[in-house]
Parts: sequence; structure tokens; C-alpha cells
Amino acid sequence: MAKLKGNAVVGQSGGPTCVINQSLVGVITECRKHPEITGLFGAVEGVKGILNENFYDLMKEKPASLEAVAATPGAALRSVRKKPTAEECQKMFEIFKKYGVRYFFYIGGNDSAETANIVNQMAARENYELRVFHVPKTIDNDLLVTDHCPGYGSAAKFVAAAIAGDGLDNESLQGIKIDIIMGRHAGCRPAAARLARTEPDTAPHLIYVPERPFIMKNFLADVDRVYKKLGRCLIAVSEGIADANGDPVYKSKEVDAHGNVQLSGTGALGDFLAAEIRANLGEKLRVRADTFGYLQRSFPGFASEVDAKEARQVGIHAVKHACKNNSDGSISIIRKPGKKYAVEYVLTPLASVAKHTKSLPDEFINAEGNDITDAFVRYALPLVGKMPVVKRLAGKMLKKRS
Amino acid sequence: MAKLKGNAVVGQSGGPTCVINQSLVGVITECRKHPEITGLFGAVEGVKGILNENFYDLMKEKPASLEAVAATPGAALRSVRKKPTAEECQKMFEIFKKYGVRYFFYIGGNDSAETANIVNQMAARENYELRVFHVPKTIDNDLLVTDHCPGYGSAAKFVAAAIAGDGLDNESLQGIKIDIIMGRHAGCRPAAARLARTEPDTAPHLIYVPERPFIMKNFLADVDRVYKKLGRCLIAVSEGIADANGDPVYKSKEVDAHGNVQLSGTGALGDFLAAEIRANLGEKLRVRADTFGYLQRSFPGFASEVDAKEARQVGIHAVKHACKNNSDGSISIIRKPGKKYAVEYVLTPLASVAKHTKSLPDEFINAEGNDITDAFVRYALPLVGKMPVVKRLAGKMLKKRS
Repeated sequence: MAKLKGNAVVGQSGGPTCVINQSLVGVITECRKHPEITGLFGAVEGVKGILNENFYDLMKEKPASLEAVAATPGAALRSVRKKPTAEECQKMFEIFKKYGVRYFFYIGGNDSAETANIVNQMAARENYELRVFHVPKTIDNDLLVTDHCPGYGSAAKFVAAAIAGDGLDNESLQGIKIDIIMGRHAGCRPAAARLARTEPDTAPHLIYVPERPFIMKNFLADVDRVYKKLGRCLIAVSEGIADANGDPVYKSKEVDAHGNVQLSGTGALGDFLAAEIRANLGEKLRVRADTFGYLQRSFPGFASEVDAKEARQVGIHAVKHACKNNSDGSISIIRKPGKKYAVEYVLTPLASVAKHTKSLPDEFINAEGNDITDAFVRYALPLVGKMPVVKRLAGKMLKKRS
Repeated sequence: MAKLKGNAVVGQSGGPTCVINQSLVGVITECRKHPEITGLFGAVEGVKGILNENFYDLMKEKPASLEAVAATPGAALRSVRKKPTAEECQKMFEIFKKYGVRYFFYIGGNDSAETANIVNQMAARENYELRVFHVPKTIDNDLLVTDHCPGYGSAAKFVAAAIAGDGLDNESLQGIKIDIIMGRHAGCRPAAARLARTEPDTAPHLIYVPERPFIMKNFLADVDRVYKKLGRCLIAVSEGIADANGDPVYKSKEVDAHGNVQLSGTGALGDFLAAEIRANLGEKLRVRADTFGYLQRSFPGFASEVDAKEARQVGIHAVKHACKNNSDGSISIIRKPGKKYAVEYVLTPLASVAKHTKSLPDEFINAEGNDITDAFVRYALPLVGKMPVVKRLAGKMLKKRS
């Protein structure tokens, strides 16, 4: 069969990550190896760029500087939080025809996979030959089929390192520290805090994810127990925690011990939990709260090497499948059996990753719902790769003199 | 003159940094080289450990593991926020006599220098030979005499990298981003955001430090101007900004456009500024705020190499001066003249660094009070050392097709 000749469009969608440009550069470098791809257009701001016909001419990028672009956080093509309507998908398809586009690579999460699927179905209905690939990306690690998502390993590494360092800070000055970790629905990012615990008494001492109801009474008892034992307690909390009714914890009036109206805000949950601890366990306790924001997905020079490599590979494999196998789909990362971490990149249908997402598996959460299990550590540690070494003094006490 | 034989005490005080253990390990390794120092006691939690006679026997630490301890954030001896009273200084001195202590090394800020100075004066009055050294440390970079403080370079590197990454994130999705940078009185840490700006239009676009009054009207005009030009604006703000009367900005009722009572809290200032921007520049604008908390002083594996090296050296030089020159004091870092960055470590009297602190020099703040100057970049860049490389696409636009 003759190779499908034409132009390719690549775009980036949704929240950026530290390695989303690795996937982009994977697509660019691989496209250049296939002469049937005659032009390579970068959609500026994802589907918005396609609809507005704003494209970078990526064939004009100097190959020498692409490695630096790949290592740069953020979406080099800029991104968009937009799920196009059916009409917009139709318009995108018309623009593809106008620009002689025969290949479309869309880097993003489940919504992007759905967009890609809709455009692909339109092309099939009109018998317009188009190869459409979704290239997976999300720090929430919530895509179906794949073992894990490019972007997650680096976000998890940042969270684990941040908790390790903050735990040492808390150990220095003692007291109670609350770290709120962004990620509204899936607990996989807050769970990564668990990777910081290298000894039984190092931080984090408690972890709460949105997959379990947050019961204030139990939380306070947990904190009290740890604090009484160690003189300190570091708690990792998902911003998405909700009570047994599914209501966000800091909006729940019944647990407000102060009669204050809690304003929503970037620090509201952490401040609220800190106030509850002081009100119930002692007003004089040293309690602090931080909220980890956008740094989790954008901090430069700290990506997981494994994550960076895999993000590049999913981009490369998408182009290879499109060109060599004449197929559409999404690239999933499948972990090979065996003790040593190894993966393969597998083609999966667009529909299999579109729309739906997955939660943190049950076996990764302990029975009490206040910690993350060793099974998660075995799963996640290879994705994070090399962590900074931290070490305490041996700390043998000198005998007191009388 | 015979060498002063006896035990040494070392302690760490105040907020930890990423390199405070470098200074500790500098003291430990250098003390071991001087046979007149017969025992080395680590005060657990600074002056609190001395008062309670809680000491680690640091001669029992394995030399091989000290390098890993040095690279670990947080205070390995634990720290304390306590300025001892005159009575407590007297008690500390009595404990020093009981434990045969002839050398005292105290790693901390200006309060620690003052404590060291008081204990030193007591010893002098009683003709008890005691060598007392302050070893400088503070992420606020506000100590007198020294060109800069160990701990600052690493905190500045974190802030600069965080702003660079967050700026790329903001560039990806556009809109307005506010980053609140902790540091209540001195603007040197928020100023470090300036180091992220490698091109005229990269983040941060505006910087506000506590050394200048914060005028809401001017702030909103600044943001509007940048946003209209670039479609995005990243703003670095010190948590310590105050209005022309010296009142904290988010408690100032006159600038509250909503009639809401602003609760104090970890995210309050950022949320308040975001609300002001929406109320005055457009409710539909994408405005986000983050508050950089304890990670600035505790994030592992990301210390400035220059900072780490200098922090080690101030510890070493303190011991050398105490043993070889029979002196007391503090170690200052003095920058040598010339284009290439180089420093020397200089003895300065305890009293010269005790009590008082310095603000960001005028020449580092622009006339409008909304940015940091190139003079600051020349000052601070060598302290931060190697920054992660970030690179954009060349981004040549494809010609639109009709």
C-alpha cells in the first residue's frame, strides 16, 4: 500500500507538565524521519489554534535547540482548556482538508483523546484518509489502559521531594504541618507523598486522598496519636477530600468549631484543618499549613528521568504507528512482568482512553484510609527514579553530667 | 601561648535552610582536626538543648556519612526560635563550665549572634576563657557586614526556578498569575524572582517588595498594562507588602472592593489580590494565585552549589579562627573586586552582626517600585549558580491559507 502523503498537525492540550514538551519533540523528530509527512504544523493553543488557523511551522525549528525545548516545562505550543463542540470538530476537519493535513497528533488527557476520536470518526464517514493519534499526558495519572501517564512521574517526584524536605524542616522545629496537594479528584498525586517516607518515623505520617471519606473526628485522633508519639506530625492532604456526604471538607459547617464563615481560597483547606487542630488538640500547638500549587507541574530542572524518557517515546511511537502501521489510536505504556522495571509502548484504540478516568486503586490505600500502602511504593517508585539523598545524624546522646 | 583545651558546643538556630547542615558539617570536620578540642557536643534544638543539657556526642558520628548529612535540608541538630533571657544566658554559661566547654559555635541569624555575644561577655567578665563564634545563616539575606548570607543563594535559586517554571505554565494557558513569596520584612527573596527573566517578556513581569509602599491603584494599572501587551502577566509579590501607612495590604479595608472580611491565612494575600484584579480589570479574566511556603528553605536536591560551598566554609573558618587566632566573632563573606565572582571569609566582631538587619538596597529597586534592577541580577546571579535551562520554540508562524 502506498504511504499516505500529507501534512501533520500536532497540538498540546490541558494542564502542562514538566515533560509534555518531550512528547512534542518526540513527535517532531520522528515526523522528520518520514518523507510522506511533507509539512509539520504546531497548533498554537491546541484546538483553538486549529480553529483559528494559527500554526507554527515546525519544520523551521532548528534540530539543535529541540533538546532544550524538550527539557523545558510548560507547553511549548501553548495549551488550552477547551473541549470542542461537534460543530467545532467539523470545522477542524474542514481546516485539516484545506491545509492538506493527513496526520493529527494530540497530546493531552482523556478529553483530548475524545476530541481526537470525534475528528477521526468524521474523517472515516467522509472517506477522508486521516491518521489520528492521542499522545497521553496528565499529572493526575488517571487515564485508562496505560499503566501510568507521562507527566505523573515528574509531578510525583516533586511532591515526594517537597514532602521529604518539608518533613526535615518540621523535624527541625517540631509541631504539626499540613501540606495540601492539588489534584481534585484522583489521589495519585497526594499518594506520591508516601515515597518520601524512607524510615518509619519520617514524613509524611498521615495521608488523606479523595477516594475515602474524610472524617474529622478520625483525622484529629490520628494527628493526636502521631504528635504524642513523635512530637511532630506531617500530614499530606488532597485538596479534593470530601466528607461522607461528598461535600468538600472546608465548606462543611458541622465541623467548623469557630463559627467563622470559611472563605474558599487557595489556602482555605489547609488553614481550616490547622484551625481545627488548634481548637481540638491545643491552641498553643505549632501548626502550619502550605498548599502546593502549580510548581508540581512546572518546576524546572527536576523532572523524573524515566518520565522524560517515556514521554518522548509515546510521541515517537504515535508517529511510528501512524506512518508504518497505517493505524489510529493512543499509545499506552504497559509494564513488563519481572522484578526490573521495564515497559513497552502499545497501541490502544482512541475510544478506550476517551472520556473516562480511573481512581487510585483500592490496594494502594490502607484500611483506615489515612495512609498509602507499600504496594503503591512498588508501583510508583520506578516512575519517579532517583530521589535526592537525605540523611540524619546518628545522634547518640551525651550522658548528662551531675 | 598554650592552646585552649576543652570541649566544643555547636548549635543551630532559627528557620532551617537547605545548607545549614553544610555549616554544621564544616564545624564538625574542622573541630576534629584540632586536638585541643577534646569533645564536640551538638546542642539539640539550639539554646533549648544547652539549657536542658541535651547534647548529641558528635565525635561518635561516622565521618563517611557526614557528606550526606551536609547535603540534607533542615537542621540536623534540630532548631529553635528562642532568644534566651539574660538569666538563661547565665544558666547556659554555668552549663558550659560544668561540661568543660571552651568553644561555642552558634549557627543562625542576627538573634543568634546576639545570644553568642551575651554569653561571650559573661565569660569575659568572669575571666573564663571561652571562644564564641557566630556562623551566619539566613534565607532572608538580611545580616549586616557580610555581602550575603549562607542559605540565601539556595532559597533564591528555588524562587527563581519556581518563577521560571510557573511563568512557562502561565505562558501555556495565558492569564494572570500571582506568586506570593514568603519573607515578611526583607525583599531579597522576592527580588530573586527577577533572576527568572531571561528575555524581556518572560516572567516575572512585575515584582513588589516590602521596601516600597504598595499602592493598589498603581498595581492594577501595572497589571493591566502588561496583560494588554502580552495576554499574560506573572507577578511576584512579597508577603510583607504594606500600604503607605505601613498596614498590611490585605487587612486594609479601603482597598476591599467586595465588602468581604478578609481572613488572614496562608493564601489570603494572593486570593485578595486576585479578587481585586478580577473586580477592577474583568471578572472573566483567568487569574490564579499561589503562595510559596516552606519549600523555599527546605526543597532537597536543589541547593545552589556556590551556597553549599560557602556555607561549609563559614563553619570551617569559624573553627579555624577560634583555634588558631584565639579570637571570637562572626564570619563574614566579602566579595572580592573584579569581574569573576570570588569571595574571602573575614572575621568580624559579634556585636557588628547582632541585633540589627538590613533591607534590600535602594539601587536594587526600580524607580516605579514595581520591578528589580539589573544591578540586583549582577549581585545575585553568582550566588544562585547554575540554573535549569529553559527554551521556547522559535515559533515561526505558518502562512494562513485562503
